[in-house]
Amino acid sequence: MSELRQNLISRDWVIIATERAKRPDQFVKSDKDKKELPVYQPNCPFCPGNEKQAPPETYRVGDDKSWRVRVVPNKFAALAPEGEKIRKLEGIQRSMSGVGYHEVIVEHQKHNITTALLSVKEVEDIIKAYKERYKAVKQDKRVESIIIFKNHGEAAGTSLEHPHSQLVATPVVPTQIRQRMEEAIRYFDDTGECVFCHTLRDELKTKERIVMETEHFAAFIPYAALSPFHIWIQPRRHSSCFDDITDNEMADMAKILKTILAKLYHGLNNPDFNYTIRSIQTKLCQTEYFHWYISIIPRLSKAAGFELGSGMFISTALPEACAKFLREVKTP
Amino acid sequence: MSELRQNLISRDWVIIATERAKRPDQFVKSDKDKKELPVYQPNCPFCPGNEKQAPPETYRVGDDKSWRVRVVPNKFAALAPEGEKIRKLEGIQRSMSGVGYHEVIVEHQKHNITTALLSVKEVEDIIKAYKERYKAVKQDKRVESIIIFKNHGEAAGTSLEHPHSQLVATPVVPTQIRQRMEEAIRYFDDTGECVFCHTLRDELKTKERIVMETEHFAAFIPYAALSPFHIWIQPRRHSSCFDDITDNEMADMAKILKTILAKLYHGLNNPDFNYTIRSIQTKLCQTEYFHWYISIIPRLSKAAGFELGSGMFISTALPEACAKFLREVKTP
Repeated sequence: MSELRQNLISRDWVIIATERAKRPDQFVKSDKDKKELPVYQPNCPFCPGNEKQAPPETYRVGDDKSWRVRVVPNKFAALAPEGEKIRKLEGIQRSMSGVGYHEVIVEHQKHNITTALLSVKEVEDIIKAYKERYKAVKQDKRVESIIIFKNHGEAAGTSLEHPHSQLVATPVVPTQIRQRMEEAIRYFDDTGECVFCHTLRDELKTKERIVMETEHFAAFIPYAALSPFHIWIQPRRHSSCFDDITDNEMADMAKILKTILAKLYHGLNNPDFNYTIRSIQTKLCQTEYFHWYISIIPRLSKAAGFELGSGMFISTALPEACAKFLREVKTP
Repeated sequence: MSELRQNLISRDWVIIATERAKRPDQFVKSDKDKKELPVYQPNCPFCPGNEKQAPPETYRVGDDKSWRVRVVPNKFAALAPEGEKIRKLEGIQRSMSGVGYHEVIVEHQKHNITTALLSVKEVEDIIKAYKERYKAVKQDKRVESIIIFKNHGEAAGTSLEHPHSQLVATPVVPTQIRQRMEEAIRYFDDTGECVFCHTLRDELKTKERIVMETEHFAAFIPYAALSPFHIWIQPRRHSSCFDDITDNEMADMAKILKTILAKLYHGLNNPDFNYTIRSIQTKLCQTEYFHWYISIIPRLSKAAGFELGSGMFISTALPEACAKFLREVKTP
């Protein structure tokens, strides 16, 4: 019989479909669509030498020519900083001008590299760029929420191969963030504790869903994981907003993020994935109830009509089995 | 400048990204992945003659051999009717036994047909099967919510080519349905009116997002459509639950559903799509505030890290332009 599990933070239910469940090793990607990429692609706007093809950079790690990470505005930005934040109410229609930020973090000079294969130091540079841009963009009073994310591979929605991630700062609080904040407040009302802290404490006690631990972070498959190998990386220290991260924590986050992505890369043969860093609404940075975290979603299944119609997910893998599988994957 | 629009019912914001917007005709599917299917596939469990490969049918339109529509339990059901509904609370973990229903509606004998190419009478048979199974499954007191949906094409998550749709009855109310119910109640509190009725009245007044109207239904692109060519078909008569549909309304729904899918088929070259019929929680069937409807989502874009991390969508098409395009598509 299948089992339904409820995510305490979103209140979403997920169906763990045992009848159609697969063993973790059945999610290994086939070599069928494997594509060899060149280290340099002459017409790639993010390859070294082509810097002028992208808008002027907003941040850089390293020197002008020997940059290690660059941040540039997205050429086809969904939101842009120019213009006023104007909210319109016309009858039952509510709209707002598209002010905000949409930036691209170019993660490396090499066209054909991915986070799993970078050094920890290189990943730390990327995280430093995230933090600096997060802090800078947050100063803009029109910004309400900042989402940092990465799309790796076609199934994850990548349009450009060159390794990059993105930052979007929105002039509204997305409903999903607002609902999680509201649930976290209720939990705090009822227990006096942060629901994320409580969850992590429990996970560290039973260890059955823990994938790895470092000094400042722990990675685990959530109890009600939405899909196979869905992973959370959570800071041990209670903190609501990503840019509160310290230098020591950044170095440690680089280590755990790189290792987890390497476990996916080597264990599942470079699956397509998204990751996202989720923080509280930017104007509420120091709260007792909300906790920032990284969510990694390998794109091993497709949302179909049931998911679109209900918001519920059907997962064909046991979270505990996925965690065990990843714990055992050796990385070079 | 882009525009953000808020969905009044879900409170979700969508970014209409004008900088990267495409013309409606740029969404026409290429012939690259076109696949010719046979009218009969010997090893397909839904083709005539292979009825024994699927579990025993729960409903049929037509005679034993010359059936027109058949409903069977899903062989790899996510939820099944056997067993007790048991809710467990262990510390912060909440789970429930996977009781419910998961059925397949086999829509036609032909392996290679699709709704857009069926006759209105044939579509009416399918809708009749939906209604009868909805009514039957609703009798089970363990059921809280019923989702009917169709996955057409690989991008929409289809695993079997033979034309079919599915019904899933869950022992919980999905959060997404619960949240929409709560918002609809608030709207009713504030205005004394059903938010869906109000929306439809406004759409019928301006007509700029209306795709077509029939006696009992109207099809339109929502003001805050999540993705290009996202379409709602809404009954004109206020009604909270799909199985409240009358015979006349079923015939009319067949006409509008078939025509809208034919407009997508001919206008966009048979795009992959999902549709879903969304009703209120089954135990609350007669309310003043909730209204059932059909949502059609052509899979023309991919949810990536931003969507997963925020719940917000970026759409690259103007709802008004999509509606105009579809209004002008002629169907044979």
